[in-house]
Amino acid sequence: MALLMTPPVLGSLEHWRDGLLALMPDLDIRLWPDIGDPADIHYILVGKFNLDDMPDLPNLRAVMPMFAGLEHLLYHPKCPPVPIVRTGMPAGDRAMTEYTVLHVLRHHRKMPTYLAQQARCEWNVLDQKQPHEQRVGFMGFGEMAAAPARVLAGMHFDVAAWVRRPREDDAVTIFAGDDALPSFLARTDILVCLIPLTGETKGILNAENFAQLPAGAAVINLGRGAHMIDADLTAALDSGHLSAATLDATSPEPLPSDSPLWKHPKITVMPHTARRVRPETVGPQVVENIRRDRAGLPFLWQVDRDAGY
Amino acid sequence: MALLMTPPVLGSLEHWRDGLLALMPDLDIRLWPDIGDPADIHYILVGKFNLDDMPDLPNLRAVMPMFAGLEHLLYHPKCPPVPIVRTGMPAGDRAMTEYTVLHVLRHHRKMPTYLAQQARCEWNVLDQKQPHEQRVGFMGFGEMAAAPARVLAGMHFDVAAWVRRPREDDAVTIFAGDDALPSFLARTDILVCLIPLTGETKGILNAENFAQLPAGAAVINLGRGAHMIDADLTAALDSGHLSAATLDATSPEPLPSDSPLWKHPKITVMPHTARRVRPETVGPQVVENIRRDRAGLPFLWQVDRDAGY
Repeated sequence: MALLMTPPVLGSLEHWRDGLLALMPDLDIRLWPDIGDPADIHYILVGKFNLDDMPDLPNLRAVMPMFAGLEHLLYHPKCPPVPIVRTGMPAGDRAMTEYTVLHVLRHHRKMPTYLAQQARCEWNVLDQKQPHEQRVGFMGFGEMAAAPARVLAGMHFDVAAWVRRPREDDAVTIFAGDDALPSFLARTDILVCLIPLTGETKGILNAENFAQLPAGAAVINLGRGAHMIDADLTAALDSGHLSAATLDATSPEPLPSDSPLWKHPKITVMPHTARRVRPETVGPQVVENIRRDRAGLPFLWQVDRDAGY
Repeated sequence: MALLMTPPVLGSLEHWRDGLLALMPDLDIRLWPDIGDPADIHYILVGKFNLDDMPDLPNLRAVMPMFAGLEHLLYHPKCPPVPIVRTGMPAGDRAMTEYTVLHVLRHHRKMPTYLAQQARCEWNVLDQKQPHEQRVGFMGFGEMAAAPARVLAGMHFDVAAWVRRPREDDAVTIFAGDDALPSFLARTDILVCLIPLTGETKGILNAENFAQLPAGAAVINLGRGAHMIDADLTAALDSGHLSAATLDATSPEPLPSDSPLWKHPKITVMPHTARRVRPETVGPQVVENIRRDRAGLPFLWQVDRDAGY
């Protein structure tokens, strides 16, 4: 009943092994590529790992991706036909939460314009909305979006979310389904993309949807580079319809140094720094699901393969 | 029992009068300089107003400053010997709260460095602390500091405050008195100055105190320009001991265009934009105290003249 640990993006295999052992000392952990007998492997923690390299694991019971974005896993022909279980913190990743709040506040407070003024040694106070006048809209309301949405609502911002399936929320106005997208966009001054990349959401940050945002809106992409049609973004910024954008994800990554996005005066490019997975944030969920599986209970946090998240 | 309304920084006298009348329709409001009979004036709302110009108001019962910073009022020889009552929102000004959270998060996430990297078209992920590893320290824990301190603690930052008098707080570690200042500074990675300007706090952001911060600390001055010894700040930044600073207050204001602070690569200069007073944020407190005074009750939110706040 071993766990196969593949290379993490951050930290060494040994650091992750030690972090997991601290939580579950009797866990048999194999460090890629030393997997031992493939029949021993019941669980695989997927980090920087190409599924093309995966050996046949006849007793595999669950795939545990370290990351929230599952598109490389779900749509890979060698993705094993076993449950895929998420490992993110169920109440939202703390780093993701503060990072999302930061970028919403940066646009709310017009920091790009203030920094441009500073470069010109210019003391000029700009118009400023109060929090309750600023309409923040989250595309997506999973664990990653809900936590910052609630922090912003607690600071009195006017927060909404657009989701696939109707639901209720005390703090956030919910718009559900494709039919509700236009009205969601029409009331959104600061748009935050935090949805999974699927066939349906690829390219969703496009000219048609930007046109439905109010003039002066800002766009923050914390999803995937492929959510964004870059040419549509720069056109909407250059026309003045959109005021600013922040891209934490680009296509490709790293963004080539000759990409015009780097030098666009209305775009902030971040090198995909929102969230850093660590043993102490991911480990508890990994261990919880192994405990449940040992006890004959179903896995928590299973991915719906049809929905794509 | 009239209120004398002096010129606000933001909006017209008429806009403020209408905002106050909406809250208290029977309030007799006189717009400076048309004060009518000086004996009618019981209250004065002080905005952009030089106390040198104030006529004798024999029946004045309270001075109501629009602003949190009272140094120009308290230490003016013509400050009337009546209660000075604050008008800020008792649970903290919402704009002040989100602005303070923004600047802490900017330094937490090393935004100045990331923006410098973007200018060089450089995709480079920097080391990043988790929120609970980032020690935020507030100088001051009045209404303006307590609200953002609690938001940050709610996002799992390690938050402390340094105050004059001991008190308890559920979310924030309190350091009280001059003796506690060194230990407060020694545990503070991001220092936020939100104390009143008094004889004791003038120049408190100085070389001696910077030296007690851990290497790499950042400083955010949301107080007054005179809290900061500018030469000490630039020396501490240039030596590398401090990593970055944000100044929302400078001395003088506006900051002259030839000040070296504008071009310092580790300093963000903001044109004193933290908070904008408006009738709808200040009005309720003004009206509440007039109601109390009419009913023979003592004023709320009185300033302690000896303490200076």
